[in-house]
Amino acid sequence: MRKPKIPEAAIKRLPIYLRVLEETAAADIQIISSAELAEKTGFSPEQIRKDLAYFGAFGTRGVGYDAALLSRRISRILGLHHGVNAVLVGAGHLGHALARYSISRHKDVRIVAIVDADPAKVGREIMGVVVRPSSDLVQVVQEQNIKIGILTVPAAEAQTTAELLQQGGVEAILNFAPAKLRLGPGVFVQNIDLTIELQSLAYYTSASEESSPSEP
Amino acid sequence: MRKPKIPEAAIKRLPIYLRVLEETAAADIQIISSAELAEKTGFSPEQIRKDLAYFGAFGTRGVGYDAALLSRRISRILGLHHGVNAVLVGAGHLGHALARYSISRHKDVRIVAIVDADPAKVGREIMGVVVRPSSDLVQVVQEQNIKIGILTVPAAEAQTTAELLQQGGVEAILNFAPAKLRLGPGVFVQNIDLTIELQSLAYYTSASEESSPSEP
Repeated sequence: MRKPKIPEAAIKRLPIYLRVLEETAAADIQIISSAELAEKTGFSPEQIRKDLAYFGAFGTRGVGYDAALLSRRISRILGLHHGVNAVLVGAGHLGHALARYSISRHKDVRIVAIVDADPAKVGREIMGVVVRPSSDLVQVVQEQNIKIGILTVPAAEAQTTAELLQQGGVEAILNFAPAKLRLGPGVFVQNIDLTIELQSLAYYTSASEESSPSEP
Repeated sequence: MRKPKIPEAAIKRLPIYLRVLEETAAADIQIISSAELAEKTGFSPEQIRKDLAYFGAFGTRGVGYDAALLSRRISRILGLHHGVNAVLVGAGHLGHALARYSISRHKDVRIVAIVDADPAKVGREIMGVVVRPSSDLVQVVQEQNIKIGILTVPAAEAQTTAELLQQGGVEAILNFAPAKLRLGPGVFVQNIDLTIELQSLAYYTSASEESSPSEP
């Protein structure tokens, strides 16, 4: 990993552009304007032009972007053009669901390994991937050139597991455990914490006291 | 719902502060400094002071914040003090996992109803909640004063389902379906798209061509 040159929020939008561009190319449409991209993604045309300018604008003024070309360019920027291997750690309910969802759908980020601490789960097959014991984690990561770790272990095990992932060579972690990971440099961590998502959503409902107009 | 006065990024940090403050209060520690909050959350003390200032600073300079008081205040701002009801739509693998995870853990945002289109799932019980048919959705939302909807339906059904949620009175939606929802004003939508999360993570690995130092 190196210092990202593109802001994190823009990186999050790239896969959304990619999805629309791939649909466009699949429909045999060659050129897409920033206005059409805006219509399909919900972002403003200004935002889109700014994002795409981070890696050199390919659009022709008054015409638009070459959908296939831009899609290939975004794939390369994201590192999806030759695929990235991922390991899922924790084959509980959430892990199981993620594996089923992801393995059937993703060809560019591939869950090639699943690891669990529970001996009862080891050896079972999820979507064609055999669950390996936790003690094999570092070895699995090294053997299969895995760059992404998906953590769905209990909070108490998250830190230790993340350290093993880093030790093996993982460079980015998607962390579903409600725990703050502390890792050395070289690993990018993205947290998805369902408690936080649900609690912050409550702010946007009438349950929030901020929604009361009587407050000064 | 009304226009949020506090930036979305700050709202996302409030539940993280809340978690640390509740742990602090539970450990019978009365006062916490912004430096300690920073140490436990990973945010900078400046960021924390700025966030907390949005709703009036309670900290005493050189001393810190009253943990119990601040925790109650954040609960009220988020609307968690009297609880918020949520419905889960889609009891597939992901929905099932979310229900199990959430019902056992969350007392402030409560999944009080689960709905599914599949007659084979209707009537089954998940963590004490009986699955109702999709045709009951609007009625369920109205009857149980539900303000939050969690969408784990297939992409093709997401828009129609979201419209029914809004019709029933839902004010915020956590959308796991890989589909862009288009709703009228009055509903806040937070998307969690696993494809996008995984694809954007790839950028932070050495698979990304941006990581190649040979590029000018």
